[in-house]
Amino acid sequence: MEYELIAELTREWVDEAGEMLRESLKNTSLKIEEKTNPSDLVTEMDRAIEAFFVEKIQKHFPDHKIFGEEGTYDEINDLSGFIWIIDPIDGTLNYVKQKSNFCSMIALFKDGEGVLSFINDVIHEDVYFGIKGKGVFCNDRRLETVPPHSLNEGLIAISTKMVTNESEKTKEVVQEALGVRLIGSAGLEMIQVLTNRVSAYITNDLSAWDIAQGYMLATELGLTFTRRDGTPINLMEKNPILVANSQAHKEIVSKFVKE
Amino acid sequence: MEYELIAELTREWVDEAGEMLRESLKNTSLKIEEKTNPSDLVTEMDRAIEAFFVEKIQKHFPDHKIFGEEGTYDEINDLSGFIWIIDPIDGTLNYVKQKSNFCSMIALFKDGEGVLSFINDVIHEDVYFGIKGKGVFCNDRRLETVPPHSLNEGLIAISTKMVTNESEKTKEVVQEALGVRLIGSAGLEMIQVLTNRVSAYITNDLSAWDIAQGYMLATELGLTFTRRDGTPINLMEKNPILVANSQAHKEIVSKFVKE
Repeated sequence: MEYELIAELTREWVDEAGEMLRESLKNTSLKIEEKTNPSDLVTEMDRAIEAFFVEKIQKHFPDHKIFGEEGTYDEINDLSGFIWIIDPIDGTLNYVKQKSNFCSMIALFKDGEGVLSFINDVIHEDVYFGIKGKGVFCNDRRLETVPPHSLNEGLIAISTKMVTNESEKTKEVVQEALGVRLIGSAGLEMIQVLTNRVSAYITNDLSAWDIAQGYMLATELGLTFTRRDGTPINLMEKNPILVANSQAHKEIVSKFVKE
Repeated sequence: MEYELIAELTREWVDEAGEMLRESLKNTSLKIEEKTNPSDLVTEMDRAIEAFFVEKIQKHFPDHKIFGEEGTYDEINDLSGFIWIIDPIDGTLNYVKQKSNFCSMIALFKDGEGVLSFINDVIHEDVYFGIKGKGVFCNDRRLETVPPHSLNEGLIAISTKMVTNESEKTKEVVQEALGVRLIGSAGLEMIQVLTNRVSAYITNDLSAWDIAQGYMLATELGLTFTRRDGTPINLMEKNPILVANSQAHKEIVSKFVKE
């Protein structure tokens, strides 16, 4: 099947999942559990949306592998073949506490390379998506390439852990930018870079389901997406992330590797 | 004139200013100047919106005093009588760089006490307003009181300066919360507290035009709004701010004053 056709199908799933998520916020008795700590939550909706995507994928693409945040793991020892990577709710803490500022993400990779990706900013009903070689869109609007510019000409997005466990290097980077922004959803932070609302997003260790979708879109749009030290990301392990336009990326990497 | 009638009139100005701001974002050649540094900007729209409000106030209430961020200062040596406090664009850096995440704010104080206040989240077309004794609303919806809860049960909003010049006390407060959020507009951060999307907002020195509108709304909604050490704010000078529900407020103050 052509990637455009797979993307059309995926878009239907993404829209349906978004609708389910918006509906779920009217439910006042959402089941919430802690995972590793009080800020690491999983709700019944994380599980329901993942199950929804998994069912669709298994029906249409029974030979594809699946990698999902909430426990759907095929035995994946390498990145060969087709792999779907799902984060049913990215920013679950915001979903619970803010009823906004979360997204639902799904991407398809082939032999380690992203071929299509969707990030749905559910509350604002903005679906960001890309198909390899065809560009990146928000709903019907094609995103423009981000012009390279310096760190000191723009804002920078970081994560809570970068604030609470701040290193001298982080401080140096942050002080050079015009200001800090922090939404609390890796997917939405990456969208901020794609839409040039921030110049860079830097964060601590993230897993494949947190980054694969943004990685595909950023790469398609010509942004630079690497580990924080400038080396390539590895979807098989956790990665400290840096995504930025080429100029800001170069400047930030030089700070993180200079000693 | 009754406060409800003044509020109806003010609402018309606020809506018109919001429309002007949304229109202005279609303008690709906005005039931008630096004020004190590259992250402290003023645009022709900051000045135009302030002038718009000032003209309306002077026409309808020629004996009221006016205090505006962009240079409209009546000789104000005390807070007696009626004073309008205006921030035409709060979050000008976001207005310029993000074309979102800024607000337009205006409040009326009488003898140092807020009697009405408007914060317009311009891009999302959400107008938050309150009239003394009548409650706080977002568009047509009345905001519910925020139930008191602990710092460790919610998110916390801070400013860029709190990240870059972080003290040990700040770090301690931030680490206790579930996570940090940072929009970059004092008005919108205060709205996050009013709508219980974050439990507290802490920031460095802010002027009357940055805080008066949120101060009025927070007070009307029963939230606690003080200087960071728990003492009352003074609109005649810069204030480090802490706004939170009563429980989180008490916990945070105890950290900031304990040594």
